[in-house]
Amino acid sequence: MAKMNAFYAQSGGVTAVINATACGLIETARQHSDKIGTVYAGLNGIIGALREELIDTSQESPEFIRNLIHTPAGAFGSCRHKLKGIEESRAEYERLLEVFKAHNIGYFFYNGGGDSQDTANKIAELSAQVDYPLTCIGVPKTIDNDLPFTDNCPGFGSVAKYVAVSTRECGMDVASMAATSTKVFILEVMGRHAGWIAAASGIASESAGEPPHIILFPEIAFNKETFISKVKAYEEKYGYCVIVVSEGVRDEEGKFLSDSGLRDAFGHAQLGGVAPAIAAMVKEELGLKYHWAVSDYLQRSARHIASQTDVDQAYALGKAAVEFAVSGKNAVMPIVVRESTQPYRWTIGEVPLADVANIEKTMPPSFISDDGFGITQECRDYIQPLTYGEAYPPYKDGLPQYVRLKNVLVEKKLEHAFEV
Amino acid sequence: MAKMNAFYAQSGGVTAVINATACGLIETARQHSDKIGTVYAGLNGIIGALREELIDTSQESPEFIRNLIHTPAGAFGSCRHKLKGIEESRAEYERLLEVFKAHNIGYFFYNGGGDSQDTANKIAELSAQVDYPLTCIGVPKTIDNDLPFTDNCPGFGSVAKYVAVSTRECGMDVASMAATSTKVFILEVMGRHAGWIAAASGIASESAGEPPHIILFPEIAFNKETFISKVKAYEEKYGYCVIVVSEGVRDEEGKFLSDSGLRDAFGHAQLGGVAPAIAAMVKEELGLKYHWAVSDYLQRSARHIASQTDVDQAYALGKAAVEFAVSGKNAVMPIVVRESTQPYRWTIGEVPLADVANIEKTMPPSFISDDGFGITQECRDYIQPLTYGEAYPPYKDGLPQYVRLKNVLVEKKLEHAFEV
Repeated sequence: MAKMNAFYAQSGGVTAVINATACGLIETARQHSDKIGTVYAGLNGIIGALREELIDTSQESPEFIRNLIHTPAGAFGSCRHKLKGIEESRAEYERLLEVFKAHNIGYFFYNGGGDSQDTANKIAELSAQVDYPLTCIGVPKTIDNDLPFTDNCPGFGSVAKYVAVSTRECGMDVASMAATSTKVFILEVMGRHAGWIAAASGIASESAGEPPHIILFPEIAFNKETFISKVKAYEEKYGYCVIVVSEGVRDEEGKFLSDSGLRDAFGHAQLGGVAPAIAAMVKEELGLKYHWAVSDYLQRSARHIASQTDVDQAYALGKAAVEFAVSGKNAVMPIVVRESTQPYRWTIGEVPLADVANIEKTMPPSFISDDGFGITQECRDYIQPLTYGEAYPPYKDGLPQYVRLKNVLVEKKLEHAFEV
Repeated sequence: MAKMNAFYAQSGGVTAVINATACGLIETARQHSDKIGTVYAGLNGIIGALREELIDTSQESPEFIRNLIHTPAGAFGSCRHKLKGIEESRAEYERLLEVFKAHNIGYFFYNGGGDSQDTANKIAELSAQVDYPLTCIGVPKTIDNDLPFTDNCPGFGSVAKYVAVSTRECGMDVASMAATSTKVFILEVMGRHAGWIAAASGIASESAGEPPHIILFPEIAFNKETFISKVKAYEEKYGYCVIVVSEGVRDEEGKFLSDSGLRDAFGHAQLGGVAPAIAAMVKEELGLKYHWAVSDYLQRSARHIASQTDVDQAYALGKAAVEFAVSGKNAVMPIVVRESTQPYRWTIGEVPLADVANIEKTMPPSFISDDGFGITQECRDYIQPLTYGEAYPPYKDGLPQYVRLKNVLVEKKLEHAFEV
């Protein structure tokens, strides 16, 4: 195959380690300059391709590219833009191929979650249909940890570490104060459909009575009575109670707890966090003093406490994506394969994109304890290794030094613009 | 002076480094075993003395005491219990001296904020009046950074670092997503009366346009119109806007923004965070997609990202407290004295407790930029050195290893209990 350029795009919610994948991918592509020309990155993900806004990563020094490994968020910008079916979104798919052709792009690396893998697969199909020589490789990324086949998703291990560390720290804080002050602490974490992130808080507890005392999963319908009796029991036994709640928790009618009937002064519905809703419940039913925190973007951008394992895997997957491409593979996604839990050992495997598309990996029921408020040993064994190692970024004058790339756009070659 | 025991108590909201002070104090006391016998710590602070619940720290190995230096929260428990004037709370003051006498306590170290320094001073006065030989030393601690005379308060530097790091990380996250998704991010931080913690977010920005774009201080009355126009301007200029808001922000009538008229399904007032209130405002006025986080205990317990300077100062103040005591000083508080900002150099000084009591150090107006939404260079020069250095705790299997002391209580000697 003649030497062609590559296109790389970051997709969906960003993570603490998606740039480590970009680092692995670009560094490895540079080592294969016989086959891969320039790596272009989409400005703000796939819409960068649609708008022909291509970042020329060859303008970045090796040092800057290396620094991506310790830089959170999306260095080239990401987007939430789902390409639907080929028929439905034909204009977009054709525009993509048109831009790829114009810039001699023969490799497409799409770094995202389930939707992105589906898109990568469709583009692979379409390019084969129209006989355009395009190698499509999906690269997994999502803090939600819901991609199938891969043992885990890059981004999740670092969120898991953040949530477990924070739960341990806040738990100690509450324990110190409980004699005369706060007795209940509620930490809200992400996870609208699956409880992976909430589950990660469970590894903070190393012996009975240690926080978190209660985990609320989206997988378990919330029952107020049972919950309140649990809080009461823990508060009486240990003097305090630490609760970690997933944003996606719903009641028995399937209604999000975060949609708790709050109204502002004008009567507008206030879609707040679930943590304040739980706090209000605890106060009303038990009269206990509470504090609550909503970690939101804090949790997924916390590169300062990233897991070394997560960084290593994110890098390795970016590297593997390029190696797959130059070895002639197409329409596949590199995955993490767990070889052993104790000692923890992993390697890189692969799966066809067609198999990945539209399957969501949910938490196995065996990961949630019988009472529905905690994790099992099996879950702990799964999650804990993903948090191993501390991948600290460099600091200067007290602050982490994250790289900001120049992000120089290449000159447009197409005459017409494209409305996204 | 004959050898006597010491009593140490942690007071008020705990911090990431108050145990580093305990470490400095206990280690130094052990080096002065000719003058100081056992260091007793109050179980849950001063109420441990009132209840005669004294922890015998001599039961802890040197290694465990050393590990306090990297352990957040209050290792002996803290409390929110203010002793009022001597006349008003005479029974409590007399009980304290009774317990001290019973356990041959000749040194009292009180580790807290302004109220605690006031209490320590009153106990010094009372013991002099009744001719009980007691050396009273206050040891500063508060994330609020509102004690006078000392250049800064242990606990603040680490919160400042946490808030600055988090603002930088979340800011990069929002910037990555803003093309198609979140355009406004709001981070709520502590500080009911003073904007020190909110101000710390300002050091995250190293050049124009970098987050945070807007800081909301309790010192500046909130004006909705000006605020909304600022958000709009930043969003238009940079594509996104990052706001850091102090929990203590009030409107022009002095009403807390967090008391925003929210009502739950039953019509009860919902005292929520100020971040969701600001978010609702942004949505209603500008229709922009937002995310918000409330850092609450996360910020003050985050030992994993503590400032080395803060840890060093916390330790040094605990050490100085004992050195002051054994050298015959009384009713004083060791303070941090800034000798130079560039390069940053500090040393330990002292101030009489009588001078400290009931003075709150507010942020100088010269620290807030003219428009009221940012910090000045003077403020940056003040805060940044306090965040210098990373004092990482040890980790095992992905999690920080914080020490849990045995906390063995000494046998009670008094016949009657005391109701707190």
